[in-house]
Amino acid sequence: MRIDHLGVAVTSLEKALSFYEQQLGLSVSLRETVEQEKVKVAMLPAGDSRIELLEATDPDSVIAKFIEKRGEGLHHIALKVPDLVSTVERLKQNGARLLNDPRPGAGGHLYVFVHPSSTGGVLLELIQE
Amino acid sequence: MRIDHLGVAVTSLEKALSFYEQQLGLSVSLRETVEQEKVKVAMLPAGDSRIELLEATDPDSVIAKFIEKRGEGLHHIALKVPDLVSTVERLKQNGARLLNDPRPGAGGHLYVFVHPSSTGGVLLELIQE
Repeated sequence: MRIDHLGVAVTSLEKALSFYEQQLGLSVSLRETVEQEKVKVAMLPAGDSRIELLEATDPDSVIAKFIEKRGEGLHHIALKVPDLVSTVERLKQNGARLLNDPRPGAGGHLYVFVHPSSTGGVLLELIQE
Repeated sequence: MRIDHLGVAVTSLEKALSFYEQQLGLSVSLRETVEQEKVKVAMLPAGDSRIELLEATDPDSVIAKFIEKRGEGLHHIALKVPDLVSTVERLKQNGARLLNDPRPGAGGHLYVFVHPSSTGGVLLELIQE
């Protein structure tokens, strides 16, 4: 199991990149716009993990609403797990609050989100390795 | 550069461990009480990084105050950097807001904290590799 990425909600990718890229020295490996989620993304690898900066492209997006309520900051932690289906079974048996059933994401990998009330206040994404 | 750990402020280590350890399947590598910071810590390795669960031992601790204000959740992200002194110089030249000058932490490694206003809302700890 490893941390796949940390999703950070920001008001401006350019402003955030001036810190993470130009000042801190990380490098962007990928930039993309995810139309379905109404976000622009910049991925910055760090070790075997990545920092994912997320800027809303529409006031209606989840990220815009998150920033409106809580301000900029960590939106979710994503963990890669070796066997998502059995992990989800175990979580359900123990009463963890899942936000969806396992379903394929943009890259084709199955994922689920676990509600912060089950995880010590962290929105947790679990992704099939 | 890599993510050394994610510090998560929780009200109860036992409750958080019942999720991260028993349900999710991570393993605790270290438990300790840091008297100076008035916290109990459990470290759970994940890939080349770790999740650090933090429970206050005193209502006066930084973690207790954080939870009082914001609830449970991510408290800080810690990155290991190859040359902390030159990174700090670069950050200062660019006007990043540092919370301390580089100083040795519990393990003897130099560290600084960068204020969330410079990082897209994340309290960022930088640690000398």
